[in-house]
Amino acid sequence: MRVFGIDCGTEITGFGVVESDAAGRQPRLVCKAMGAIRLKKTLSTAERLEQVFRELSAQLEQWRPEVVAIEEVFYSVNAKSALKLGQVRGVALLAAATQKLPVAEYAPLKIKSSVVGYGLAKKEQVQFMVARLLELAELPQPADAADALAVAICHIHTAQTLRLQGGAQ
Amino acid sequence: MRVFGIDCGTEITGFGVVESDAAGRQPRLVCKAMGAIRLKKTLSTAERLEQVFRELSAQLEQWRPEVVAIEEVFYSVNAKSALKLGQVRGVALLAAATQKLPVAEYAPLKIKSSVVGYGLAKKEQVQFMVARLLELAELPQPADAADALAVAICHIHTAQTLRLQGGAQ
Repeated sequence: MRVFGIDCGTEITGFGVVESDAAGRQPRLVCKAMGAIRLKKTLSTAERLEQVFRELSAQLEQWRPEVVAIEEVFYSVNAKSALKLGQVRGVALLAAATQKLPVAEYAPLKIKSSVVGYGLAKKEQVQFMVARLLELAELPQPADAADALAVAICHIHTAQTLRLQGGAQ
Repeated sequence: MRVFGIDCGTEITGFGVVESDAAGRQPRLVCKAMGAIRLKKTLSTAERLEQVFRELSAQLEQWRPEVVAIEEVFYSVNAKSALKLGQVRGVALLAAATQKLPVAEYAPLKIKSSVVGYGLAKKEQVQFMVARLLELAELPQPADAADALAVAICHIHTAQTLRLQGGAQ
């Protein structure tokens, strides 16, 4: 299974591609790619959204994942920030829909629990565990790319759990 | 000048095309089109965003406006609503950017002042004045289309004022 994780942000949007290469109880996870789209401050909002859409679409075309995993939004931010984040998230979801890819959404607590084993884990703990699970030699950078890899890992873990539960019935 | 107005909403997104056919002090305003994109409730969020993008892009291609006018967002809504609205607004801005169209944003107060002459005008007053300014036989329906026509009219009035001020220098 190949999963494309996205971590939307109003300045930086991270992405990461994770593959699980076996169907056993402990599939090996492999990081195929990671990166971050840094929005140019000189651009207008519409141009920035076009940049996110174009770069994400290019990555999706290159990696052809089976599913896109994205963080559910965190509602404690204020309305102004939520609107700006929503604009970026809208074009990210559109990039997936345009390529007919299913989208899976996970709450931040669920992602951290799945990767670190603790829902209130700090950013550094997520980076550390993502590096460990993917057998990376260094911490994934920037943190936005680590978060994108984390949501992709969360999807693989969730799918794995559902499959094992299905098999046990 | 041909302006494409958009009124984004999480359920219905209105649009309207307004043309001013003269460069005089009192240009005649003509409504070339209006409509509303009603999002299908059975679709996923990503699919709905794809529907808005596809339908808006088709209208922009058909009408080839010189500019897209859109309401600035109203921050008093809560963060959850702002995020959902932001997602729709993001793909609307992307539709304009994809076709290399400039985007002009206007605050709700400014739009109402420009169309009704009173910033706190009610929805019905906006519909009534839009119908009058565009010489429509009936009130524009739905209200979302009227709001889209209103932001387009606001842009034409603003451009006209700037031109007259420039000419007077």
